[in-house]
Amino acid sequence: MFKQNCVYPSEMEITRPTLLLNKETAICNIETMALKAANLNLNFRPHFKTHQSAEIGEWFRAAGVKGITVSSFTMANYFAEAGWDDITIAFSVNILEIPEINELAGRVKLNLLIENMEGLEALQKQITWHTGIFIKIDTGYNRTGIESNRTLLIDQLLEVIQKSPLLQFKGFLAHTGHTYQSNSTHDVFSRHFDALLKMKALKARYVNEWPELLISLGDTPSCSICENFDGVDEIRPGNFVFYDLMQFKIGVCKLSDIAIRMVCPVIATHPSRNEVVIYGGAIHFAKDSIINIDGKPLFGRIIINDGEKSLLLDERNYLHSLSQEHGILKITPRDFQYFKPGNLIEIIPVHACLTANLMKEFLTTEGEIIKMMPFY
Amino acid sequence: MFKQNCVYPSEMEITRPTLLLNKETAICNIETMALKAANLNLNFRPHFKTHQSAEIGEWFRAAGVKGITVSSFTMANYFAEAGWDDITIAFSVNILEIPEINELAGRVKLNLLIENMEGLEALQKQITWHTGIFIKIDTGYNRTGIESNRTLLIDQLLEVIQKSPLLQFKGFLAHTGHTYQSNSTHDVFSRHFDALLKMKALKARYVNEWPELLISLGDTPSCSICENFDGVDEIRPGNFVFYDLMQFKIGVCKLSDIAIRMVCPVIATHPSRNEVVIYGGAIHFAKDSIINIDGKPLFGRIIINDGEKSLLLDERNYLHSLSQEHGILKITPRDFQYFKPGNLIEIIPVHACLTANLMKEFLTTEGEIIKMMPFY
Repeated sequence: MFKQNCVYPSEMEITRPTLLLNKETAICNIETMALKAANLNLNFRPHFKTHQSAEIGEWFRAAGVKGITVSSFTMANYFAEAGWDDITIAFSVNILEIPEINELAGRVKLNLLIENMEGLEALQKQITWHTGIFIKIDTGYNRTGIESNRTLLIDQLLEVIQKSPLLQFKGFLAHTGHTYQSNSTHDVFSRHFDALLKMKALKARYVNEWPELLISLGDTPSCSICENFDGVDEIRPGNFVFYDLMQFKIGVCKLSDIAIRMVCPVIATHPSRNEVVIYGGAIHFAKDSIINIDGKPLFGRIIINDGEKSLLLDERNYLHSLSQEHGILKITPRDFQYFKPGNLIEIIPVHACLTANLMKEFLTTEGEIIKMMPFY
Repeated sequence: MFKQNCVYPSEMEITRPTLLLNKETAICNIETMALKAANLNLNFRPHFKTHQSAEIGEWFRAAGVKGITVSSFTMANYFAEAGWDDITIAFSVNILEIPEINELAGRVKLNLLIENMEGLEALQKQITWHTGIFIKIDTGYNRTGIESNRTLLIDQLLEVIQKSPLLQFKGFLAHTGHTYQSNSTHDVFSRHFDALLKMKALKARYVNEWPELLISLGDTPSCSICENFDGVDEIRPGNFVFYDLMQFKIGVCKLSDIAIRMVCPVIATHPSRNEVVIYGGAIHFAKDSIINIDGKPLFGRIIINDGEKSLLLDERNYLHSLSQEHGILKITPRDFQYFKPGNLIEIIPVHACLTANLMKEFLTTEGEIIKMMPFY
């Protein structure tokens, strides 16, 4: 039997796909990460893109968090309104937003990322307020950033920053996002270690000239399980507040650490093809999947309520496909008995960030509704 | 050179991912489908789940549309508020929503779908207003519905309906959704023809007892290219209002029929790996993809503005991957010159329904902002 930590409040009438949040589990995840950062003497600047909620932000504040990370100007603006005054936008600067950034930089301590001369020169010309600048380093994820050995380009960028009275060099920032593609914790450790070596080499090269430079890293897998943060000054994990099946599959959290569930009504059962139709589709879950034991894409694991008990069904029972509003579950003949039209079931989602982004609000296990950032 | 039909209005300052809509193209798509339905003597009950917008609904009304299709109770409620009084919820009835359905059924002419005895019996017990009932038939998509040869179950359902004074049997409804998985127009024709045979057999069997029964079909691929709707009374396509790359790939629309584009800022260029980073990710596009000529997933085709001209780049240039806010383009060395940080580019999305659902508003090429249904 599955240790149930996410029962939906029976007094709440759930009739449609609903994102259920176990507040206790989320706060425990926050406190665990805050404690780890404190023990390792790291500044904890959590990424708020997973929850996108001013109210959940307060749970971080209660755990001593003072500065935050966001992934867009829009999100920075939202959390500035919510009283956060030290914000890093961890997305290489969008030149077209500089006029709006100026307005925000006048109100809060803002850090921006650059990864090329075009972005930096646009900032240099257009910025009107003191702004912190991180140089974005690519530690191997190959999405954004500058490879750590391209010191000629880094030197050129630093030269421009040095001449810009409004731009203050803060340090080097990386997101070792390829830890999310890990097949095991071993992959996480080795990718994190590789990132550490690259960032430490940069620190060694530039620390004499810039004694206050910071090294900022921040992916949930390595922040959850690695203990070696030698040379690192700051961590910025985000997903850990809820965790999800992807993190569980890598091996960086337990199932009981996952703080969210989708609650969905059963619509129809099709025993002839071992399938159950639920109300809950791509517009609720989003379409990230992991590969199941049968080699097919899995969009979620299933929990059913059998009288007083809550049961996590094994992986042969899973959310198998998604169209706009429909979800199709594959269910073994043994467990088919648990599914009846009009019942509610719980699904553990694969990717918490994208699911929350679609649902736009949480129902807590205490019965409270928590809103997220409205659509911009 | 690409016949450009979707230039964004230069007086509008676009700084973030923006869903651009060519109103003229969308209205042309609506009028073409309305005319086709009229010529074939079919009731045209378009599906509104693609655009989810009261304002775009008015373009349909102007084309003579009186009844509509939606995919959720929430959407039915939204369009009822917008003045639509003849609505089919093309999603097998969610038993848990019947109390809310009652409230709506008292205000508008509502049709519901059933596909099992549980749903029907719940309706029979709880419904308090006259409601039309379609029996959902599975024509081979194998997502929802009853196989057309299960006449024993259909007979049992009809017997219950007959005894329920508030439930009026309307007919048989199917969504031949496997036409979306077609590799060619040939597949669309054969799947549609197969669906026709199944629905005609049902009509032949039940028409004597229920002389007014309707046959309702409605997928965009077959409604766009098939001419044989023998035995069909009503069509319910939705996606055709915008079309998208998936429809273009099947061969049911021209590129110039696609009425939407995502406009995205270029953030960084990485010539060493033939990649460009844009602001525009999974929370803007959603994650449906098609397979590109190189065997890799493609999330969108790219249009660039070269001075006065607009160029659709060939398929070796494409939106290659998506994370939360980032998109990565694969760009050939020949076309790399077109990409500079701070530029705007246009992307034709793969799946219009999911992209629009995320963006929640359109900017028309006339510079008007059109809102969609707010998040429920």
